[in-house]
Amino acid sequence: MDVGECVRRFAAARVARLATCGSDGLPHLVPVTFAADASTVVLAVDHKPKRRTDLRRLRNVEQNPHVAFLVDVYDDDWDALWWVRADADARVLPDGPDHDAAVDRLVARYPQYAERRPGGPVLVAEVRRWSGWSSAGTPARGVR
Amino acid sequence: MDVGECVRRFAAARVARLATCGSDGLPHLVPVTFAADASTVVLAVDHKPKRRTDLRRLRNVEQNPHVAFLVDVYDDDWDALWWVRADADARVLPDGPDHDAAVDRLVARYPQYAERRPGGPVLVAEVRRWSGWSSAGTPARGVR
Repeated sequence: MDVGECVRRFAAARVARLATCGSDGLPHLVPVTFAADASTVVLAVDHKPKRRTDLRRLRNVEQNPHVAFLVDVYDDDWDALWWVRADADARVLPDGPDHDAAVDRLVARYPQYAERRPGGPVLVAEVRRWSGWSSAGTPARGVR
Repeated sequence: MDVGECVRRFAAARVARLATCGSDGLPHLVPVTFAADASTVVLAVDHKPKRRTDLRRLRNVEQNPHVAFLVDVYDDDWDALWWVRADADARVLPDGPDHDAAVDRLVARYPQYAERRPGGPVLVAEVRRWSGWSSAGTPARGVR
């Protein structure tokens, strides 16, 4: 799976998993809806937390910008497995033009967001590396 | 979703995602096959790496035992979403009776492993906390 194929499969998925790790060294892991292209992955918090540090994923990113996203497909036929990972560096945007542009990308992908536009902070992650593996092919690893 | 329901849904899943974070602060994320009960999650490396430190997931755990596992179900109907996370502390077992017992649990769950028993190290994780969320219900969080 080459890097282009990694991006294509990742960007087409409806859900990814986000791993963050704060200064306490505890990895945190949640499923996320997102929008991605070859260079960025964006996601939003649905509603404004009372304090910016209320959510572990946001607090962790402010302590340590390194994050990982994973899209994977499982099948009981182990010749049909694949996954794609994006290693990235993220920042939290509470508002502003880049925040609004990220929300626009999410709204364009998910009709649910069009009905109820996410009102909280946005996480914008710049992809450092795409990695992909498929049981049908050879692994790929690409630095952008 | 109470803790019993978290365990039930997690243990029934065929795939989970494992997040680890080594001393470099870079979260690492891979899909894993596993066996779980209320207190432990175990997984195996299919074949012996050349060096014990060849695989990021193993190297990270030896540097930092804190890990997280996630099982999640996505549906375009956002009233049908759920996820369960196990926060755990893991150790790597290259061999021995606990290693063999973990492999037995994996072989019992996956016919593919019965055909080709995993030959590499095992990761045994003691669950510190189960967390679960369902769009149909209220969040649960339980310290064992």
